[in-house]
Amino acid sequence: MSIAQQTGRAERLSALLPEAGVDVIVVTDLTNVRYLTGYTGSNGLALIGAQLRAFITDFRYVEQVAEEVDPSFERLQAPLELLETIERTLPDGPLRLGFEGAHVSVREHDRLRELLPDRVELVTVEGLVERLRAVKEPDELTRIGEATKLADEAFAELVAEGLIGRSERELALALTMKMYQRGAARPSFEAIVAAGPHGALPHAAPRDVEIGRGQLVVIDWGAELDGYCSDCTRTLAAGEPDAHAREIYELVLEAQLAGLQAVIAGAGGRDVDSVARGVIETAGHGEHFGHGLGHGVGLAVHEAPRLSQRSEAVLEAGNVVTVEPGVYLPGELGVRIEDLVVVTGDGSEVLTSLSKELSVTD
Amino acid sequence: MSIAQQTGRAERLSALLPEAGVDVIVVTDLTNVRYLTGYTGSNGLALIGAQLRAFITDFRYVEQVAEEVDPSFERLQAPLELLETIERTLPDGPLRLGFEGAHVSVREHDRLRELLPDRVELVTVEGLVERLRAVKEPDELTRIGEATKLADEAFAELVAEGLIGRSERELALALTMKMYQRGAARPSFEAIVAAGPHGALPHAAPRDVEIGRGQLVVIDWGAELDGYCSDCTRTLAAGEPDAHAREIYELVLEAQLAGLQAVIAGAGGRDVDSVARGVIETAGHGEHFGHGLGHGVGLAVHEAPRLSQRSEAVLEAGNVVTVEPGVYLPGELGVRIEDLVVVTGDGSEVLTSLSKELSVTD
Repeated sequence: MSIAQQTGRAERLSALLPEAGVDVIVVTDLTNVRYLTGYTGSNGLALIGAQLRAFITDFRYVEQVAEEVDPSFERLQAPLELLETIERTLPDGPLRLGFEGAHVSVREHDRLRELLPDRVELVTVEGLVERLRAVKEPDELTRIGEATKLADEAFAELVAEGLIGRSERELALALTMKMYQRGAARPSFEAIVAAGPHGALPHAAPRDVEIGRGQLVVIDWGAELDGYCSDCTRTLAAGEPDAHAREIYELVLEAQLAGLQAVIAGAGGRDVDSVARGVIETAGHGEHFGHGLGHGVGLAVHEAPRLSQRSEAVLEAGNVVTVEPGVYLPGELGVRIEDLVVVTGDGSEVLTSLSKELSVTD
Repeated sequence: MSIAQQTGRAERLSALLPEAGVDVIVVTDLTNVRYLTGYTGSNGLALIGAQLRAFITDFRYVEQVAEEVDPSFERLQAPLELLETIERTLPDGPLRLGFEGAHVSVREHDRLRELLPDRVELVTVEGLVERLRAVKEPDELTRIGEATKLADEAFAELVAEGLIGRSERELALALTMKMYQRGAARPSFEAIVAAGPHGALPHAAPRDVEIGRGQLVVIDWGAELDGYCSDCTRTLAAGEPDAHAREIYELVLEAQLAGLQAVIAGAGGRDVDSVARGVIETAGHGEHFGHGLGHGVGLAVHEAPRLSQRSEAVLEAGNVVTVEPGVYLPGELGVRIEDLVVVTGDGSEVLTSLSKELSVTD
């Protein structure tokens, strides 16, 4: 039995359709398709309704589909343009067909309208599968935990080999290779290694620049294993840092611990952000924390729910989120500390196993 | 002067707008934004009209924009949702605003409609920037050539280290590392190493399976360097292959050489595909060549023009395309041979420097 079938994901989605005002939904986002059917290829879509489970792909994936796709789905082979095959899978009569507004381009929408008869009304739906994905099943938690463990071990080995005199790029590559060597399918995203003033750019790309004594080094990395991602950031000191760097580090750590404390089922994504942000604002660094506190992680490295001032999410048991405050002082340094945590009924469980005391490494 | 300014890309795009029936175009696809402005970040858009050059990003990228973006663009800072800032950059009066139908989601389109006043009519445009990108400038040809050289060298080193007894995954990782070590920003795509029957899957993912004596091994890889991609495939023999494998190899090579011969400015993308496909069909393997002959390569590893039975492209001098026929025998073996070539006025220039004689390696 495939994971998707075992856990009744299609059934749960189907139960949300009346509320969304549609009879059938066509799921085209490939991560959502994977979640619902098990399919990991690059061209496939799913149709789900009360009585409908259909999966459509092209000839190139026939073997793969036999291995991967939930057998409760009818499997259909289509020409390369999959949309052509939708109509004949739909039930007769007037029908409201939902599509994923965030993932379907205007061109694809126009093409769909062109291919479907008038009896089919197209209705935008927003984030239905994403809502299911946000609440992890036990098996998913296990996989995310394993990806985290792998990434933690790769990092520990990297740090043991030293920092000073190696370039940001060299360290990022070494960390990536260590994840591959431990069996990662790929990094969850391109690893960030940013030293000294470069650490003040939250989206820094690793440079061919050697790390110097006394610099803080922000390292943000993750592994993808068996479909699931990890995400973690640590800030290290390459040799003894000055008092100001230590002070900023301790401030970010205090904010991070406060944020972790605030993670509990029922808390608002905005409120959790406010708790950590409050610590940084009180210290006068509010303007130096220019991003949200965290985001969900699962099949994608950024998914629901968000922890930020714009979030309308309310945390539920089974959410997996990052808690990652930062303080960025332009031209001077950056500090970010990030753990991956599971929301439980009475708090949270931190998946990341790495220490958060400021590590001073040569 | 930035590359984009130097080469007048925005001017060339602006000249296409009347024909597309729009006064101004909003470019949101990040590869197209990079091509037009030089910006390499993850949140930015460009507005271009006869008298308008505007680039919008958020606060995180202010430093990066100062370094990268063509100074003839007015640079505007926006909230994270960039679309909010479009209206105030537009000229007064009734206006037809083009947007990229293939890249704008239905949700983004709806949001844009909501934000813009009635005087602005939204018009779908298709592939305008892609059309410009398809014809490379001399500097772009140089960069693609450098990415190709880097990838060729990494491959030559890999093969010199031997194949038999190493796993597909090990070889793919080693090749990837060799590209990084030579300065690649990243692989153009995840390298494919597929041995024996696995080579019959054109989209094979490398496995933890050792390569055995007598197997053919399909290796498809590329490097991204300074924004530009390379793409190449070679099929090697791990030890002496049997006569049938050699026969299929020679057939694919014959088709590939015929395809290369057909590449010339003025030829149709469909016709070039037909020439190579004809060789394979004549040998009775038409049904075993289930993909198009090739595609354009540049800032993206798959771009215009396409060489396939569905292509309506006509080749122009300055196009850079792959020529990559394959024969896939399910359960037995696969062969694919791919070069990257520049279309010239009187034929083509092959960028790939690697031999295509069947290389037998232990």
